[in-house]
Amino acid sequence: MKHDILHRKLRAGIVGGGQGSFIGAVHHIAVELDGQAEVVAGAMSTDPQRAEASARAWYLKSSYKSFQEMAEAEASLPDGVDFVMVTVPNHLHYQVARSFLEHGIHVVCDKPMTFSLEEARALVELVEQKQLVFALTHNYTGYPAVRHARHLVRTGVIGTIRKVLVEYLQDWLMEPAERTGNKQALWRTDPTKAGIAGSVGDIGTHGENLLEFTTGLKIAAVCADLTSFIESRQLDDDANMLLRLENGGKGILTCSQVAAGEENALSIRIYGSKAGLEWHQMEPNTLLFKQPGQALQVLRTGLPYMSDEAKAATRLPAGHPEGFLEAFANVYRLAIADIRRVESGESPVGGYPTVYDGLRGMQFISKVVESSQKGGTWIAF
Amino acid sequence: MKHDILHRKLRAGIVGGGQGSFIGAVHHIAVELDGQAEVVAGAMSTDPQRAEASARAWYLKSSYKSFQEMAEAEASLPDGVDFVMVTVPNHLHYQVARSFLEHGIHVVCDKPMTFSLEEARALVELVEQKQLVFALTHNYTGYPAVRHARHLVRTGVIGTIRKVLVEYLQDWLMEPAERTGNKQALWRTDPTKAGIAGSVGDIGTHGENLLEFTTGLKIAAVCADLTSFIESRQLDDDANMLLRLENGGKGILTCSQVAAGEENALSIRIYGSKAGLEWHQMEPNTLLFKQPGQALQVLRTGLPYMSDEAKAATRLPAGHPEGFLEAFANVYRLAIADIRRVESGESPVGGYPTVYDGLRGMQFISKVVESSQKGGTWIAF
Amino acid sequence: MKHDILHRKLRAGIVGGGQGSFIGAVHHIAVELDGQAEVVAGAMSTDPQRAEASARAWYLKSSYKSFQEMAEAEASLPDGVDFVMVTVPNHLHYQVARSFLEHGIHVVCDKPMTFSLEEARALVELVEQKQLVFALTHNYTGYPAVRHARHLVRTGVIGTIRKVLVEYLQDWLMEPAERTGNKQALWRTDPTKAGIAGSVGDIGTHGENLLEFTTGLKIAAVCADLTSFIESRQLDDDANMLLRLENGGKGILTCSQVAAGEENALSIRIYGSKAGLEWHQMEPNTLLFKQPGQALQVLRTGLPYMSDEAKAATRLPAGHPEGFLEAFANVYRLAIADIRRVESGESPVGGYPTVYDGLRGMQFISKVVESSQKGGTWIAF
Amino acid sequence: MKHDILHRKLRAGIVGGGQGSFIGAVHHIAVELDGQAEVVAGAMSTDPQRAEASARAWYLKSSYKSFQEMAEAEASLPDGVDFVMVTVPNHLHYQVARSFLEHGIHVVCDKPMTFSLEEARALVELVEQKQLVFALTHNYTGYPAVRHARHLVRTGVIGTIRKVLVEYLQDWLMEPAERTGNKQALWRTDPTKAGIAGSVGDIGTHGENLLEFTTGLKIAAVCADLTSFIESRQLDDDANMLLRLENGGKGILTCSQVAAGEENALSIRIYGSKAGLEWHQMEPNTLLFKQPGQALQVLRTGLPYMSDEAKAATRLPAGHPEGFLEAFANVYRLAIADIRRVESGESPVGGYPTVYDGLRGMQFISKVVESSQKGGTWIAF
Repeated sequence: MKHDILHRKLRAGIVGGGQGSFIGAVHHIAVELDGQAEVVAGAMSTDPQRAEASARAWYLKSSYKSFQEMAEAEASLPDGVDFVMVTVPNHLHYQVARSFLEHGIHVVCDKPMTFSLEEARALVELVEQKQLVFALTHNYTGYPAVRHARHLVRTGVIGTIRKVLVEYLQDWLMEPAERTGNKQALWRTDPTKAGIAGSVGDIGTHGENLLEFTTGLKIAAVCADLTSFIESRQLDDDANMLLRLENGGKGILTCSQVAAGEENALSIRIYGSKAGLEWHQMEPNTLLFKQPGQALQVLRTGLPYMSDEAKAATRLPAGHPEGFLEAFANVYRLAIADIRRVESGESPVGGYPTVYDGLRGMQFISKVVESSQKGGTWIAF
Repeated sequence: MKHDILHRKLRAGIVGGGQGSFIGAVHHIAVELDGQAEVVAGAMSTDPQRAEASARAWYLKSSYKSFQEMAEAEASLPDGVDFVMVTVPNHLHYQVARSFLEHGIHVVCDKPMTFSLEEARALVELVEQKQLVFALTHNYTGYPAVRHARHLVRTGVIGTIRKVLVEYLQDWLMEPAERTGNKQALWRTDPTKAGIAGSVGDIGTHGENLLEFTTGLKIAAVCADLTSFIESRQLDDDANMLLRLENGGKGILTCSQVAAGEENALSIRIYGSKAGLEWHQMEPNTLLFKQPGQALQVLRTGLPYMSDEAKAATRLPAGHPEGFLEAFANVYRLAIADIRRVESGESPVGGYPTVYDGLRGMQFISKVVESSQKGGTWIAF
Repeated sequence: MKHDILHRKLRAGIVGGGQGSFIGAVHHIAVELDGQAEVVAGAMSTDPQRAEASARAWYLKSSYKSFQEMAEAEASLPDGVDFVMVTVPNHLHYQVARSFLEHGIHVVCDKPMTFSLEEARALVELVEQKQLVFALTHNYTGYPAVRHARHLVRTGVIGTIRKVLVEYLQDWLMEPAERTGNKQALWRTDPTKAGIAGSVGDIGTHGENLLEFTTGLKIAAVCADLTSFIESRQLDDDANMLLRLENGGKGILTCSQVAAGEENALSIRIYGSKAGLEWHQMEPNTLLFKQPGQALQVLRTGLPYMSDEAKAATRLPAGHPEGFLEAFANVYRLAIADIRRVESGESPVGGYPTVYDGLRGMQFISKVVESSQKGGTWIAF
Repeated sequence: MKHDILHRKLRAGIVGGGQGSFIGAVHHIAVELDGQAEVVAGAMSTDPQRAEASARAWYLKSSYKSFQEMAEAEASLPDGVDFVMVTVPNHLHYQVARSFLEHGIHVVCDKPMTFSLEEARALVELVEQKQLVFALTHNYTGYPAVRHARHLVRTGVIGTIRKVLVEYLQDWLMEPAERTGNKQALWRTDPTKAGIAGSVGDIGTHGENLLEFTTGLKIAAVCADLTSFIESRQLDDDANMLLRLENGGKGILTCSQVAAGEENALSIRIYGSKAGLEWHQMEPNTLLFKQPGQALQVLRTGLPYMSDEAKAATRLPAGHPEGFLEAFANVYRLAIADIRRVESGESPVGGYPTVYDGLRGMQFISKVVESSQKGGTWIAF
């Protein structure tokens, strides 16, 4: 227990995220956005010069050569980091997270949680044993409108869910970017770094998580058709999936990284026995609420009719758009609040994606790949 | 051959479409919209009073008690109808169409074309034998933007098609309307009138037709999951389908009549190796053209850059919205032009959905139902 | 009185609208769209060959060399035209309309109603004296959503109107099209044919009419700034106007024919003490309803909550888009119904724009031009 | 000159922004968002308890009882604040800014810049004399799409600007909120705190600034019609303004705080001799580019075709929405970079709104109010 933890900003460390990284910069802004934490230490690259330059650009107090060194050193300091942010490629998530957890340091980790389902199971065990906070940055759950969608489902306004349509469409891999030096493309299409899935792991899991988060329903079975449209690409860059939900509802999840002209088009539509919902990540402050025979309602974040949990995730009055970084910061805000609680001897409250969501995502990847490899047959969860 | 046929409006007859019918009124407006035909005779209802009142409301010259009587009588008149419009429930399409074809009268028929696949095959044979015009009102192909989408695919602007997403969502059957006297709902959910499929036949076939029309590709295999969400409803009211296209492309077709708040949301998105397209029936004069790394282009009917075939289907300058009736009328306009040609001894030119599209739709229904009945397995076409 | 008038389609004549005319074709489709009238006679061009060819293309029974000849001849026939459609340039409206009215024939006329305010006053007098139907094709009032907007204002849902914003933006005159043989551009920018105003007469009057129609309020004063952005153009192609309404509300009306990239962007926004409304002609089946602190409602034509007068102007279920031609046809449908009434000895019911709306439009043009010529001062109505 | 200034985060102080303040929290997030500054000191409220609690909630190192005390104390510290953020009501801007400038501390100040035109002129003089950075938070200029709009105008793509339409519509004052204890409403409708204008000062100046920023043109004359729709409200809550631009172009600026259902609807449309532009603050990552006769282009932040200055204001790839806070932070980022320059002995580079923009805004307020008070006459600038 850290006795001053309620009266200061938390101290964060980062592994990965060196210069040129997209997601490192995102974590940096997100973790500090609400003035509740400051990044003070990092092992930002395995290239020592890049690590050093990255740490200097962020004005970090300490820069380490490796995450092992950092975990050890920070754990031994009286003012060491309170938690670590894991922003390395998938195949390293597990060992980095484990290293910090074993040193008693809380973890916020990128998704998909691990390289393999086995690692995911081991991580669950470790987190349960250590009783530390483990947050997974399924950041799209941080949007107020997504939280309000969940609220409307939970409170019965939508009725029994019958049909869910989830899409996540991008185009950044529609050419073989991995062959032209794009670092992001390189590791994400490499089975030794990304795991058994390409688009399904990178963005499909966001879709799966969004579906289960908002509907409160588990996917019960999947029938998947995965494709690599780029010659010589080893992992899927496109996937079409039929879903059966645990309550008898049906669904579709489609993801693609070869969908010409699509930027980051994550969306969900939920149809229940009473009403429907529609949300698009690229216009995130709007939630469409559809009742048969009645006027379509355009719900907007920041307005008085929104639920308390949507309001808690909103910083600005209506019409002042909040975006991706603010949603990402909402995951951090909730995780930081729980770290304060745990370090004060209180029980964690949650509200952010955890190690169990990470396990679920890894199971999803596993079932989807199995279904597609068997020619597109139904696989139960 | 009718020697005056180029110098007068054509004379049309109608079977079905009596008062209260939605589609009868649509056909009436559509067939006359361009001043090329006039409805003059009808067998509008099996209820004699309703038939009479309907004919009077349309100022028809002749009202018949049955389609058989009408076919016979009109065929014997010197100024009998040039063609007939078939707007009765599915299970009657075949016999009505056959009756008029056998009397040498051209036919414009509602979709799905017949009650069964067998009837569809018989109709193909009859049309081929009679050498008469047979047009099927897959009206959505009549939209200028849909025709321009096809043009862009054909001219190679989209590249090799990789992924196609088709949706057709409605909510009018989300309650058991067939139990509360809704006549439309009654026959469309009755397997003795609608055939083996519900939503798949009624709207899924529009999706299938739109996909094959715009992409020029055949569906090669389907994996379908059909559901009846309303208790005691005998036919599907919702369907999710994975598609494999003949060129290796993949697709999704989803249709629903229980999607809360959806009006008539037919849409198609096409992603190729070079560019993508998106079209929504409810905003029909807009076609989105998506190229990676370039500005999204909003193509609009009526503007100079549209293709000749889009222009030929457009009546007004840009910004003067044309809608459902105008698209429907485009099918009629093309069919009427062919009737004039055939009656003048020329060869028909086509451009509208024909008996072969109708057969294709019936095959689609058959494969989809088979796939779903087998638990959602892949069925090749 | 014509005793058979309830049991047949009405017979219409047309003056103007010869081949190549945009608005002639619009009138043709609109007048016949509901199967209540048929165009049978025309004086479609002052060029005899074009007149003849145009009449033949429409399968007219009679083609005349001049409107005078047509008025006289048709008036003397037992089955002459019941009404005439006036689709010639502005400077001829008055004499054509007068000629038919004096022969006892009802009139449907394009806007702006006349060339000058004096002619407008004379026409009012003539119509009052003749007791014939005179409809003005301010077609935008025919849209169901516009009628529903008026309904919401009338029933007090909007409260006291405070602010109204009307726009009508096009770009078809942003180059000097009148110098490159565009016939439409030629007469519309010619003060001897169009009158004292350019864009204000052609489209600004639609804005004025839409504002007064939906709000039920009169414009009390205007402060206008008119511009001709194209060198040597004699009439305004752009206008910005501040409005004061009779109830103390304020408004803006802007119109332009040089607004790059705009097609036919007529819109109105109404803000009252209780709620607001927004409608865009280019997406005409949608009406936005805005209440402070509540969800924006997207009202859609064809749905059960629409008012009776919106429903009466709607032919199709929701989601089947109706457009410009259907709205235009609604004006005709109402006028035709009144012609039937008047010819049956009943009183006309109205509901369509009349000679008084035409006079109002001419007054508006006069005040706006005066204000601008005085440097942009306030002119009371 | 501060010799370490390039190797550390800057230290910021804040005046105002105590708990419950909307804009204080915005400044807090914005100034720290890019990890270039940290708020360390504050005089956050004149209420000592609120000041103390606010400072504690932000983990500030120093909390002062008054801005005078803070200016003096911080100026004397070796590690005192590098700049101050002024977030108090308008009538205090001048004296707070002056106090810090006189102590050699850079200033970032809310808009409108001062209470009166006289104060604005005095402030210009003081800033020129002190050679310190003075940034004004016309935050909407911080959006990448706004910067790209300016770029397109500057590079001649739009041609000669003919017409500009600017709107800023809200509804938060449509009821007399100032009589029900809303603190924001209270001072903003109070002429002793807000100055001579209400909505024109609060949001109209944003519109004026956006117009002049993007077009590079000065407003040459205005004709304004201001209204207070709420009884007993002393300042305008609605304004309609005709504009004449220095190049002969025309414009409209309308702002309202009584427009039912509007959230924060700032938008600009620019029409030139070659092309047009349209931008809406509530969908800030989209810029519409309109060329006559060509497809509407939807330009999106984060894509490769954007200009360098738009890219410099963008943190995320396309499709990851950035919003109000990021735009606000862009103003801070540019100002902080200039503070670093000035403190390093370099010349400032600018790129953010300055004291001259603040003066321009105060002149605008003055001319607009004069025009309206004279009954809506044209007033030259």
